[in-house]
Amino acid sequence: MDSYSTTTTSSSSSSSSKLLFRQLFEKESSTYTYLLADVNHPDKPALLIDPVDKTVDRDLNVIKELGLKLVYAMNTHVHADHVTGTGLIKSKVPGVKSIISKASGSKADLHVEHGDKVSFGDLFLEVRATPGHTLGCVTYVSGEGPDQPQPRMAFTGDALLIRGCGRTDFQGGSSSQLYKSVHSQIFTLPKDTLIYPAHDYKGFTVSTVGEEIQYNPRLTKDEETFKSIMENLNLSYPKMIDIAVPANLVCGMQDLASKA
Amino acid sequence: MDSYSTTTTSSSSSSSSKLLFRQLFEKESSTYTYLLADVNHPDKPALLIDPVDKTVDRDLNVIKELGLKLVYAMNTHVHADHVTGTGLIKSKVPGVKSIISKASGSKADLHVEHGDKVSFGDLFLEVRATPGHTLGCVTYVSGEGPDQPQPRMAFTGDALLIRGCGRTDFQGGSSSQLYKSVHSQIFTLPKDTLIYPAHDYKGFTVSTVGEEIQYNPRLTKDEETFKSIMENLNLSYPKMIDIAVPANLVCGMQDLASKA
Repeated sequence: MDSYSTTTTSSSSSSSSKLLFRQLFEKESSTYTYLLADVNHPDKPALLIDPVDKTVDRDLNVIKELGLKLVYAMNTHVHADHVTGTGLIKSKVPGVKSIISKASGSKADLHVEHGDKVSFGDLFLEVRATPGHTLGCVTYVSGEGPDQPQPRMAFTGDALLIRGCGRTDFQGGSSSQLYKSVHSQIFTLPKDTLIYPAHDYKGFTVSTVGEEIQYNPRLTKDEETFKSIMENLNLSYPKMIDIAVPANLVCGMQDLASKA
Repeated sequence: MDSYSTTTTSSSSSSSSKLLFRQLFEKESSTYTYLLADVNHPDKPALLIDPVDKTVDRDLNVIKELGLKLVYAMNTHVHADHVTGTGLIKSKVPGVKSIISKASGSKADLHVEHGDKVSFGDLFLEVRATPGHTLGCVTYVSGEGPDQPQPRMAFTGDALLIRGCGRTDFQGGSSSQLYKSVHSQIFTLPKDTLIYPAHDYKGFTVSTVGEEIQYNPRLTKDEETFKSIMENLNLSYPKMIDIAVPANLVCGMQDLASKA
């Protein structure tokens, strides 16, 4: 069987599986938010990756219905296209800790660095530094081990998108750095690792490392060609950047702070 | 563990699992198309449930990249909000058979009825008649057995949506019939059965039978209350219905036929 045709099912679970997983979509910015929880643990501890301010009520409601205890609201990076839901979540659910990379320069309760682990119950995510879209981008990868989900899952933010990647022309972006990040930190994962990006604009929900190694139209190229592609995208200035980045640097708390 | 907090992971697979599964989204009509394939079978036979005309090229491209052989293009019902991709797929991929229920009154290569099985490799879907949104609605349920995906998966079309259901005021719709269909054919499935609807408008991608039994705001009510809710929705006339329904009754082949 080829690397890209490995079984990637939403429907089957191994006997040791304890992960509850939900992919959630915010239509306006085409952002995916991910809910993960260890439902075998008595507390059912849960975390959200890349929550959006506009869909916080939806996310908190499903967490409540599923009987989960939200412990972390995490970001893969300082987003330029939407305001993070992290601040709003913290104001609504006391005790939730926000997480972002130290390299992001953003405010948060906990700052993570390459090699750190984020644990929830008996499950954990591994932090991999994947700068290039922004200086502080990280990829959260589900843990390795017999009690961790199989295949592994990589929450890549904007570093690697399905058949694409994030732009590299602002916020400390660097096409050279992004190329190295993806090739050294993501493409080295097992080929059946599921890729869950922060965005998709074509209606894809998931890919695999094997698929992106073979079919990503940008990252399959050599580094010089990749850099040339990234330098000639001629993208317009992100319409939300002047609102989103300042807000996200304070964890989406800007409005709440000014109202306080 | 409560019924609604069963493990619903996209990331883990049992040793016997052979299903490749992809959920695909069409933003304009908020339609989900589902790709299923038996990747352990030498031919890698695949099927699409509820393809949309506008995203046919995307769907056929990913099928090609994954090395799958598309055998069936199926609909849960005659859609009123988008044109099915079935006809276009048949014109582009010779040999693909279209499938819809006999009760739909729509043209197709194969007509299915309650209790029929649709096989692809060693996997199969079971057909359950779930009329009420339209007279010909069916739910495709993944097979029961040691070699079939666990938990089971129900592709409910518009009969059951996540925390909602399809309207019942046109195309032979009947709120009384829909209530009976969902309660007798879907809510009787194991509580961890994954619900994959034809649409979602709030960014949810999946639910479970247990969750909908407990939290569906309409179908948790008694039948009389449900009928009253459905009769007082005051929905506007569907903007695509006069284009979509005639096209879908001939499998989305209307334009192709008129151009031929």
